Amino acid sequence: MNFNMEEAIEILERTPQTLEYFLSGLPAGWLQSNEGEGTWNAIEVIEHLIEGEKNNWIPRLVMILQEGERKPFPPFDRYSHFNERAEKSIEHKLHEFKMIRTENIAKLKALIDPDYHLELTGAHPSFGIVKVRELLSTWVVHDLTHIAQIVRVMAERYRVDVGPWKEYLGILNR
Amino acid sequence: MNFNMEEAIEILERTPQTLEYFLSGLPAGWLQSNEGEGTWNAIEVIEHLIEGEKNNWIPRLVMILQEGERKPFPPFDRYSHFNERAEKSIEHKLHEFKMIRTENIAKLKALIDPDYHLELTGAHPSFGIVKVRELLSTWVVHDLTHIAQIVRVMAERYRVDVGPWKEYLGILNR
Repeated sequence: MNFNMEEAIEILERTPQTLEYFLSGLPAGWLQSNEGEGTWNAIEVIEHLIEGEKNNWIPRLVMILQEGERKPFPPFDRYSHFNERAEKSIEHKLHEFKMIRTENIAKLKALIDPDYHLELTGAHPSFGIVKVRELLSTWVVHDLTHIAQIVRVMAERYRVDVGPWKEYLGILNR
Repeated sequence: MNFNMEEAIEILERTPQTLEYFLSGLPAGWLQSNEGEGTWNAIEVIEHLIEGEKNNWIPRLVMILQEGERKPFPPFDRYSHFNERAEKSIEHKLHEFKMIRTENIAKLKALIDPDYHLELTGAHPSFGIVKVRELLSTWVVHDLTHIAQIVRVMAERYRVDVGPWKEYLGILNR
């Protein structure tokens, strides 16, 4: 196992500002690029990340600490951010993500002592028994998967423009 | 076609600082994570990006402007950065990338008037005739593909740690 709480937090605390730097001020052509009908653009990915901060990571962590395996996590609707989409600017959303992530890292540090809590278990509605360590590792990899998604959907915009170089560009050959 | 030089530059100028913010100060466990023998870690990707700034994008652009289709580009060795790897810190390399990219964006603006030059053609050693627009679009998508690669190789570190959540994490299922 490679999980280390301090090093996991190093990623969790960098993600919002990295995305803020990358996306703030970009023209709509980049922010609204997607991979076709039913796929997310960069703004929708940020909305999904905010949703996870509100309803996924910390609530599930608290549930493991309070209930253990007695009660399964409520299912997390990965599309729920589409129900309450506000017409806020990308800059506003990135700021919201940064603020709630900062709060959640503080909660994580207050709740979890990595010497004692990483092997505690809860009940996932689909997977069954899961550990705190698995939940926290997933939080980190979830950030990474969505950073990769953002650059991938943006790359889609130049799929035709790159001409024959498409062959060398892994991001366009999935 | 979606290419627009001003909007392309918006990405080119953000990439180095985005990566600087994301990677500076990270522990070796993250920076040295890779996908197995013969694959690159985040540091090696930055070295490759620097190499492209030195020997790929601007030199090829100049060659199109000076030679047109008369003379093919010299082949670009995508592994050449392994021959002259310096033991500099990641922070030093990120700074170098940022400096040379800034210079190259200034050169791009001085060399190319998008109203006149985007359809000029050169000779690629493998692809044959290529256009300035295709080269510049590729420069942008090349940034995006390598940002995606960096987060993907970092995610690899927690492949086992995430436990059953692996199934939901696209970045671990390529």
